[in-house]
Amino acid sequence: MTDRTDHPAPPPPAEAGATITPIRSLDELAPGQRYELGGFALSEAEIIEFARRYDPQPFHLDPEAARESLFGGLVASGLHTLSTMFGLVMGSGWLARVSLGGNRIDTRWPAPLRPGEPVRVTAEVVEVQPSRSGRSLGVARLRYRVRRVADGVVVLEATGRHFLRR
Amino acid sequence: MTDRTDHPAPPPPAEAGATITPIRSLDELAPGQRYELGGFALSEAEIIEFARRYDPQPFHLDPEAARESLFGGLVASGLHTLSTMFGLVMGSGWLARVSLGGNRIDTRWPAPLRPGEPVRVTAEVVEVQPSRSGRSLGVARLRYRVRRVADGVVVLEATGRHFLRR
Repeated sequence: MTDRTDHPAPPPPAEAGATITPIRSLDELAPGQRYELGGFALSEAEIIEFARRYDPQPFHLDPEAARESLFGGLVASGLHTLSTMFGLVMGSGWLARVSLGGNRIDTRWPAPLRPGEPVRVTAEVVEVQPSRSGRSLGVARLRYRVRRVADGVVVLEATGRHFLRR
Repeated sequence: MTDRTDHPAPPPPAEAGATITPIRSLDELAPGQRYELGGFALSEAEIIEFARRYDPQPFHLDPEAARESLFGGLVASGLHTLSTMFGLVMGSGWLARVSLGGNRIDTRWPAPLRPGEPVRVTAEVVEVQPSRSGRSLGVARLRYRVRRVADGVVVLEATGRHFLRR
């Protein structure tokens, strides 16, 4: 995998996802809709920097030690992949006019993400629920998937519960 | 909440949780066990720095704009709370001898975390499952809770699925 770390990084997340049209209301969302939100890659240096603060384990910190791990080489902290994906989503502006916060996210990492590996992010609308109290907001459940560009393998799947303006 | 941002930050996570005894095997864990893993607080500057990269929304970025939000003031990105908690857990060394990785974490944020607010982290063993294939590893489900020191309110609850050495 070491050859992949020499590839140049793609543009930063906010640029990569900037072409999406921001929604103006929860009511524009319907179950089954899918959105393309851009892509990213994490360099070895970025992976190590994140892991030092938030996930200091040998297979995220040290390429040599990582060879002895189950992963066989350095891999990104799953929290790094999750946070970068979320930064891409929020940086794209897609939900910027309507997002009021969130209170839940359930995350799976079916496969590891290695340094320099380009991935793409999609979101799928799972559920849309206007508030019962008649206020001008509601809840959307959105399922995010992060896939390797090279082979389509999903490295992260996360379902978030968002409060959105109507 | 602005007065809280003037309080000095507590020691960094790795120090705050460093007194816990590392486990040597999955087999030392049993459902119902609880561990104290230390504490932290997030300064306003740290909250804004994290949010710029990973969760650029007004209520995480700008104290003025945040006053107009549902939160009524700046709050930490939930991913920042989650990542800092995880850095504390892994930095404590508790699982350093046995951790082989993880593939799932389900997270809820029942209440917001504001700048300078001290919190404490606990872990509870939910389930322990040695591998059926007889290999020298197994799965532990651990439930983490992050509570405000001042009033015990839970600001984060997360259940992680860890692969641990036996």
